[in-house]
Amino acid sequence: MVYSREQLMEAVSAQMPAKRWAHTLGVMETAVRLAEQYGADPVKADLAAILHDVAKYWPVQKLEQMIKDHGLSSELLDYDKQLWHAEVGAFVARQEYGVEDQEVLDAIRYHTSGRVGMTLLDKVVCLADYIEPGRDFPGVNNIRDLANHSLEEALVAGFESTIQFLLSRRQIIFPLTFMARNDLIKQLEANS
Amino acid sequence: MVYSREQLMEAVSAQMPAKRWAHTLGVMETAVRLAEQYGADPVKADLAAILHDVAKYWPVQKLEQMIKDHGLSSELLDYDKQLWHAEVGAFVARQEYGVEDQEVLDAIRYHTSGRVGMTLLDKVVCLADYIEPGRDFPGVNNIRDLANHSLEEALVAGFESTIQFLLSRRQIIFPLTFMARNDLIKQLEANS
Repeated sequence: MVYSREQLMEAVSAQMPAKRWAHTLGVMETAVRLAEQYGADPVKADLAAILHDVAKYWPVQKLEQMIKDHGLSSELLDYDKQLWHAEVGAFVARQEYGVEDQEVLDAIRYHTSGRVGMTLLDKVVCLADYIEPGRDFPGVNNIRDLANHSLEEALVAGFESTIQFLLSRRQIIFPLTFMARNDLIKQLEANS
Repeated sequence: MVYSREQLMEAVSAQMPAKRWAHTLGVMETAVRLAEQYGADPVKADLAAILHDVAKYWPVQKLEQMIKDHGLSSELLDYDKQLWHAEVGAFVARQEYGVEDQEVLDAIRYHTSGRVGMTLLDKVVCLADYIEPGRDFPGVNNIRDLANHSLEEALVAGFESTIQFLLSRRQIIFPLTFMARNDLIKQLEANS
């Protein structure tokens, strides 16, 4: 079937607790606002935001099986389970909900980890996920302030808060997250 | 020529300021002590320590040229110049001073960055470089305490202090350094 925006929202919200759907609504609102501010496509930002956490509450066994069965990035299985839903979410967005736009699929896929060479839409969706109104973690208001001036500055601060959190918890840090932070700093240096 | 230990020390010390040679003497002493404590070869630890900073005070243009001319890891040129002397040092240890032992050469090469799959000797020399008696930075005494119990715990703390320093200075972080930290945490989890 082809999904209208409302049908898509209904189908996605049915797959998570109400609290997480409230988060998704916050990401949608923030991603559209950031897209308008920084010149990304707000319709694509909205679509990626609706779908970004579609697989967030799926059982980890199911996520693992889908990564194996469909040839998704199996390297992820060596890292934090929190990363798996993004990879599977992009797959499901295409297979189940008919999203063909590669920019939208990539923004879903990299919304948690980031990557080297993030597109404008990647940045918008990833940052919206950090700063949507329901988020509350140490430093979030600083990231919100930075987001008024620079997507890249705000994302560097976002990734650093993630890295600090993982360092303090003595957890493995996904290489792409470090490399995304390095890459954003290079972009900022090149533009300064 | 074949160098005696004394000739080698004289040749290496001539290539750096007295203060850095004092650091090298500290690394030698500490590396031998750690080798004896953790079952590495103290003679190899001593040799790697003597040579580890041989190229530390060479002009960066010379380091860059040697990396290019001799097919060393040119990826390093995209990262902090502080990393270059280790790569060149290992090359010089073999070419100039006749060191053939791959374990010693690797311990020199990875003493600053670390790597995935650090050998016992890599760990000893890298940690000695963090904690030799002349070192004074925030957290160094904690790393010294950890070194009494576990090479890996101490090195994780050492790499984290480096990562924190680079985060706070907004500098690029060399991928091998956070991958070395991830790898040591995996080793500690596997042994716990």
